[in-house]
Amino acid sequence: MIFLQRLHFLIIVCILIFTASHLPAADPLPSWGDSAAKQNIIEFVNKVTKKGTPDYVPPDLRIATFDNDGTLWSEKPMYFQMYFAVDRVKALAPQHPEWQTREPFASVLKGDYKTAFAGGEKAVLELVVATHTGMTTTEFEQIVKKWSETARHPQTGRLFTEMVYQPMLELLAYMRANGFKTFIVSGGGIEFMRPWTERVYGIPPQQVVGSSVKTRFEMREKIPVLIRLPEVDFIDDKVGKPVGINSHIGLRPIAAFGNSDGDIQMLEWATGTKGARFALLVHHTDAKREYAYNTGAEQALKDASEKGWTVVNMKDDWNVIYPPLQK
Amino acid sequence: MIFLQRLHFLIIVCILIFTASHLPAADPLPSWGDSAAKQNIIEFVNKVTKKGTPDYVPPDLRIATFDNDGTLWSEKPMYFQMYFAVDRVKALAPQHPEWQTREPFASVLKGDYKTAFAGGEKAVLELVVATHTGMTTTEFEQIVKKWSETARHPQTGRLFTEMVYQPMLELLAYMRANGFKTFIVSGGGIEFMRPWTERVYGIPPQQVVGSSVKTRFEMREKIPVLIRLPEVDFIDDKVGKPVGINSHIGLRPIAAFGNSDGDIQMLEWATGTKGARFALLVHHTDAKREYAYNTGAEQALKDASEKGWTVVNMKDDWNVIYPPLQK
Repeated sequence: MIFLQRLHFLIIVCILIFTASHLPAADPLPSWGDSAAKQNIIEFVNKVTKKGTPDYVPPDLRIATFDNDGTLWSEKPMYFQMYFAVDRVKALAPQHPEWQTREPFASVLKGDYKTAFAGGEKAVLELVVATHTGMTTTEFEQIVKKWSETARHPQTGRLFTEMVYQPMLELLAYMRANGFKTFIVSGGGIEFMRPWTERVYGIPPQQVVGSSVKTRFEMREKIPVLIRLPEVDFIDDKVGKPVGINSHIGLRPIAAFGNSDGDIQMLEWATGTKGARFALLVHHTDAKREYAYNTGAEQALKDASEKGWTVVNMKDDWNVIYPPLQK
Repeated sequence: MIFLQRLHFLIIVCILIFTASHLPAADPLPSWGDSAAKQNIIEFVNKVTKKGTPDYVPPDLRIATFDNDGTLWSEKPMYFQMYFAVDRVKALAPQHPEWQTREPFASVLKGDYKTAFAGGEKAVLELVVATHTGMTTTEFEQIVKKWSETARHPQTGRLFTEMVYQPMLELLAYMRANGFKTFIVSGGGIEFMRPWTERVYGIPPQQVVGSSVKTRFEMREKIPVLIRLPEVDFIDDKVGKPVGINSHIGLRPIAAFGNSDGDIQMLEWATGTKGARFALLVHHTDAKREYAYNTGAEQALKDASEKGWTVVNMKDDWNVIYPPLQK
């Protein structure tokens, strides 16, 4: 009797599966306008997933790498990780009275980020060391997690994690549905991204590559910990991106997505070999819905036109920028 | 009509699935004798996979890390990667006449490995630099791949890749079947393992963590390459193992498997937190079928008995050591 009931249920399931497989497929990229960029993506994915053709790539080798800042989420008026750093400076200031008069901290505490970051790389490094190191990896993870759930963009009022690009979320899902493994390869901090990338992008920690500080294993009162040290370990930008990809993934991507000169070498690495390969640049052209700028992407845009990389014109090619807000 | 034929076929499939699900489950670890080690493994896996219990761990967090040398394959009379190094010295000797009189190369070329490696770490490093660097990552991958398919162990005559432990192959498959992601975390070279770990262990390149040399991205006649540099980047051993795990996986393992003092910190890292955790040491006790030694594992064995880590007694607990040879 139970057997018959179960069989009955299974037949219904089978009929439902059969029916679903005969409905027309929904557009997997609804936020993408009907542009060359969208066509190029779909054409590439169809090509590498079609068995028995010379361009076919088995699922194990379908590796796609995505820059983060400016490619998966916005990066203006300054990198979002810098907002994290300044929020940390403010939170830690009571324990550091000397910061009131010491740059770049003094300017950060006055809210004058322009002066704070005028010191360029040196100022950034000083802020990162003061705010990103000296704690255990577990403590840092908790700090970032909380920040990612509460910190808001000064201009849009959205959570920073709500300033991800809806078309790119669809693209990530579309590629995964076609057997791709999606990786982040960002100049941003690897441990600044990992606490929220699975929730926001569906990308698990082990598929996030980024810049890092050194860590040290030690036993603290019989509890094993990893301490984040005030020393840069690796910069995952420009020529560092192929190095980081090789170290963490060990396979060469067949598709890479970026938006700036920092992504050039990653796109070259992904495309500079035989077989079907794909490279895409997000071009920030939408002053009204996002930002419009070429600064920092001049060479990448030049390379794109020379090498046939696909360029997304945000203003024209994307129907929406950010996902609808969750209530 | 086609609809009815398909439906018919689907019903048969459903019945087969239904029937199979009611057969008694086959032993997933047939090469494991009925010992405490086997019971501990199965108990742990059952515990963390049972929904609605306090020990339940969701699949995303089921991370298991495995040492390689002495844990997944043999490591005697010397680490197999050292056989690779000496094979490379012999292959490259015609281009290096100076090696005939220069140590440690001269002793390697005479087949006197004992003298060659008497120089300890310095000699090993010199051999590794001479044989593992100076080429592109792609070239090195091809060299390792070919070696892994042809090089044989001097005592057993087996391919080195056939000197993997059958019980551990079953354990890897069993854990994966229970939703675990299996990672190698080895002191061996990351790029020495990646070309064959998927074929031999079912572990893809992005799930291999190991020691590494630095690499540099450059364009060679418009072709992007990564050059392997004669400079150590990272040593994935002892305190390096938790560091490598954190860098590459970004999650803490809930189960770890090793065999020597080099694995202590990895096992501490996996078990040193709340929740159901598992640590296992392979103890080499089988002089007849494999090797019997405590050297290099003295502290680990002591820790195991103090901390309740499971210890495999190879001689008694494993019905077979190596897989049957493929014809």
